[in-house]
Amino acid sequence: MRFAGVFAPIPTPFDSDERIDLVRLKVAVRRWLATPLTGFVILGSTGEAPFLDEQESDQLIGASRELVPTDRPFIVGTGRESTQATVAATRRAAALGAEAALVRTPGFFKAQMTMDALVRHYTAVADASPIPILLYNFTAVTGVNLLPAAVARLASHPNIVGVKESGGDIAQIADLVGSTPADFNVLAGSGTTFYPALSVGATGGILALSCVLPDACARVFRLVAERRHEDARELQQQLVPVSRLLGNTYGVAGLKAALRVVGYDVGVPRSPLTPIPPSGMAALHEALAHFEKAAV
Amino acid sequence: MRFAGVFAPIPTPFDSDERIDLVRLKVAVRRWLATPLTGFVILGSTGEAPFLDEQESDQLIGASRELVPTDRPFIVGTGRESTQATVAATRRAAALGAEAALVRTPGFFKAQMTMDALVRHYTAVADASPIPILLYNFTAVTGVNLLPAAVARLASHPNIVGVKESGGDIAQIADLVGSTPADFNVLAGSGTTFYPALSVGATGGILALSCVLPDACARVFRLVAERRHEDARELQQQLVPVSRLLGNTYGVAGLKAALRVVGYDVGVPRSPLTPIPPSGMAALHEALAHFEKAAV
Amino acid sequence: MRFAGVFAPIPTPFDSDERIDLVRLKVAVRRWLATPLTGFVILGSTGEAPFLDEQESDQLIGASRELVPTDRPFIVGTGRESTQATVAATRRAAALGAEAALVRTPGFFKAQMTMDALVRHYTAVADASPIPILLYNFTAVTGVNLLPAAVARLASHPNIVGVKESGGDIAQIADLVGSTPADFNVLAGSGTTFYPALSVGATGGILALSCVLPDACARVFRLVAERRHEDARELQQQLVPVSRLLGNTYGVAGLKAALRVVGYDVGVPRSPLTPIPPSGMAALHEALAHFEKAAV
Amino acid sequence: MRFAGVFAPIPTPFDSDERIDLVRLKVAVRRWLATPLTGFVILGSTGEAPFLDEQESDQLIGASRELVPTDRPFIVGTGRESTQATVAATRRAAALGAEAALVRTPGFFKAQMTMDALVRHYTAVADASPIPILLYNFTAVTGVNLLPAAVARLASHPNIVGVKESGGDIAQIADLVGSTPADFNVLAGSGTTFYPALSVGATGGILALSCVLPDACARVFRLVAERRHEDARELQQQLVPVSRLLGNTYGVAGLKAALRVVGYDVGVPRSPLTPIPPSGMAALHEALAHFEKAAV
Repeated sequence: MRFAGVFAPIPTPFDSDERIDLVRLKVAVRRWLATPLTGFVILGSTGEAPFLDEQESDQLIGASRELVPTDRPFIVGTGRESTQATVAATRRAAALGAEAALVRTPGFFKAQMTMDALVRHYTAVADASPIPILLYNFTAVTGVNLLPAAVARLASHPNIVGVKESGGDIAQIADLVGSTPADFNVLAGSGTTFYPALSVGATGGILALSCVLPDACARVFRLVAERRHEDARELQQQLVPVSRLLGNTYGVAGLKAALRVVGYDVGVPRSPLTPIPPSGMAALHEALAHFEKAAV
Repeated sequence: MRFAGVFAPIPTPFDSDERIDLVRLKVAVRRWLATPLTGFVILGSTGEAPFLDEQESDQLIGASRELVPTDRPFIVGTGRESTQATVAATRRAAALGAEAALVRTPGFFKAQMTMDALVRHYTAVADASPIPILLYNFTAVTGVNLLPAAVARLASHPNIVGVKESGGDIAQIADLVGSTPADFNVLAGSGTTFYPALSVGATGGILALSCVLPDACARVFRLVAERRHEDARELQQQLVPVSRLLGNTYGVAGLKAALRVVGYDVGVPRSPLTPIPPSGMAALHEALAHFEKAAV
Repeated sequence: MRFAGVFAPIPTPFDSDERIDLVRLKVAVRRWLATPLTGFVILGSTGEAPFLDEQESDQLIGASRELVPTDRPFIVGTGRESTQATVAATRRAAALGAEAALVRTPGFFKAQMTMDALVRHYTAVADASPIPILLYNFTAVTGVNLLPAAVARLASHPNIVGVKESGGDIAQIADLVGSTPADFNVLAGSGTTFYPALSVGATGGILALSCVLPDACARVFRLVAERRHEDARELQQQLVPVSRLLGNTYGVAGLKAALRVVGYDVGVPRSPLTPIPPSGMAALHEALAHFEKAAV
Repeated sequence: MRFAGVFAPIPTPFDSDERIDLVRLKVAVRRWLATPLTGFVILGSTGEAPFLDEQESDQLIGASRELVPTDRPFIVGTGRESTQATVAATRRAAALGAEAALVRTPGFFKAQMTMDALVRHYTAVADASPIPILLYNFTAVTGVNLLPAAVARLASHPNIVGVKESGGDIAQIADLVGSTPADFNVLAGSGTTFYPALSVGATGGILALSCVLPDACARVFRLVAERRHEDARELQQQLVPVSRLLGNTYGVAGLKAALRVVGYDVGVPRSPLTPIPPSGMAALHEALAHFEKAAV
């Protein structure tokens, strides 16, 4: 179970001209390496992947690969809208050192993304990929729901090793756990419901929240492993207000701002995303201060 | 915590002419009394309350009250669209022996059911009611979402003692738990997510599923109380297929059909609801047989 | 085509204790009778029908019947959640002088309201009714969509003479027109899209807006009949801001407030509805003043 | 009003290996040039733009530019997720001969696409573009709704000359017409509601349907210009069944299949899209045959 645990989907640092900033990347990754995070994901949604062209993506993979030691799983987001572009991106990521590919569902032609179309797409990608594939369902962003029945079919493919489910529907996560083999990774994508996801059998999470509060997220995971459910639940309750601000409320801009509050500098998001307003900054400061006080 | 535990929201038995059938009611309730169910709710959604006129409602309350001994909490659904009709129904229910009233949100004029309007409505009802009030949020049916912030405000009313949340959004249930006093009852309404709801702190459930499988539902509750989370989760997984057929798939008609399979006869639903099709009957038989085999 | 034209779905006047106020009713109806409105609907959604008990409903029908002369169609809303209650209400309305019944779809058990269930429901009601039936689809309120295919089937029933479609989806209205006989009434329910509905063939409207601005609504209808489409479109554009305030923004409370602005007094809505806030009052005054200026 | 009229958003032809097929493109465009279509759009949604990389996009623009004579407006879709990539694509399209750019809203980070963010995005693109900009709102695909209030603000930019609204909400199209200057192009994107859109003042359409039935679409436009509303409405009713099959039901695959039926060969869609099933093919044949019979 190489992909069980808590993974940080790290943001792509930009400088003030919105160019990738590899210096900021290096400083931030070094700091994350000093935390109990299991591993890293680059070029996920929180990595602003849809804003990077193919050259930038390759550059970021290469630079990140050099920073992450091999004892930590290093996962790269390679989903594109077409099957052929997804295959090409996955192969390039593998050549640049990615250990696994996190492949979000296509979403533009959502009305046509039937279960069959998605199974064919992922099968073609997994067939062609030199590295293991993690499915990635993020309905709030793509408008497509990769249902447990489709994941169950795909889980039998030898090169598909898990799924990231970003929705907060715990019944759906329970279904994923119940309909896939025991060694299939079911990774939660929502920090707000991390403990409930673990309580129904998720094997870990890829959580924006864990970029900001890596120790606390790792602690929730450990508490459940130790069957200390009530302690896990209590810690989760304290994490929710911070998690919400990074999720729907402010998204990537919220994540980048929260990182600044806790001492990381990954710059601003790329346009049309905008930095969060002063009121959001105040809310983040308050939520993070409140968390630290409660956590003591 | 008189309202913690597992409550059965019992269906209203009708005869073949769609009239209330008190004989069937008596036989069924006697049988439920031999199970570990904590208590009973009549005139909820599964009781087809919107199909009964005021005279029928009163008749059903009176007849049920005689059947349920006082050691089991006896709760009556009294929500109506107007505040004044809800107050009147609640007072009549109290006079007929209801121990608490379960009051669903109004839903017809959903666009106007702001948080303030709902708080005023429930405050007026609780002020006027001789018996404790349980709030009742069932967004899938009413199109209104009584948010945790509104429940938190209402929880301070001395005559409001809990909430039934029928949605499967575990984050919302966790919020209800986190934003209300420890002695405020947070009751899950979805059998499909009963264990996850308990894992985030719900104090029990009002579950259609518990009419059909009272022992198993009570067992999930007890396992969590005994901190045997993994056993609870496993049992929950086995309950899901049955629960789904009683929920969105077939609703009240599914519940009545499932009861027939396990030996209860509460007749058919009232029109425009219709008995479930033969394919549904087969699915119920299979799901229930599968559950019994797994549960052994 | 007795039910073509512009019909006012009049609000139920309440006094300050939220009781039906027959004096206010009489004064208001007399004034509406001096306008070019084709006819009247009572006990529709804007009549707060879900807030009235059966006795109040009967009282209102009787009192209204006396006020409306027979040269104006007099329609009564009789939809209830159960088929049997709808039949009973329709028969009582007929006995009290209703000329036709406007029957909204049941909506509480929305997941079970399949096309077949709705066709059976309406067929049973139409079979039992002594007066003609108008179907009534109001998806925003009921969560149920009575699709054109269902209406097409029902249109062949000799006692079903039309449909009120309250949604603003013009393609659906065009479908209704295209899939029903030429003498089947397709009545728009949204004042905001009245002209576009007429342009695709609707035979009239039952419009809250027409309670407030009866002359203008009747004029839109007449302009289309005279094939003066551009004039109709221009007048429609001027009506939209007022119509929006009566629709989603403020609903029945907005209608009652707007009526006060133009000189009708139908009191306040019943709780949990509340009078509109001062800002809403100001918006109504401005929109109505702006309309009058533009209309000159 | 260079952009009033009926525009065909032509599909990108692929060969059986899913590569762009310029021969098929040439044959098809020549045939469209013999119809009364006002002009052409390439790299729209129906052009499968999200499946083409930047090199392919440039290649297609260059090849298409050579085929379309200058008396027909030639518009290129250049929307990307980031502002900087949209600016770059627009400049390249202009250099390759595009006469205007159709820029869809970003949609990946939909929760953050506020009215302000969208106004800033479009303003930056229009400022940097050497050619006029047409806004493009396609909520069903992007999950973002560019509201009339935002369009009204953007309409004052000298380099923004119109909007394509792909939704079928006629009230929204009426609002666009009512809140923008008379010389601002409001182009409908839904063939199913083309006539109603024109009836509320749209200046034309960019319609997948017009690739298949260019004469009929042009005729609807002309009939409204000649104030023959009833004839336009009748023709529209006949077009609806075909239009629906190209829209939600089968999308791009349906369009490509329908083109084959009427004698154009633009190959198959790119994966993960798939050719339509035999039942869809039969439905298309029937709808097109039915249209031709009715149109005679």
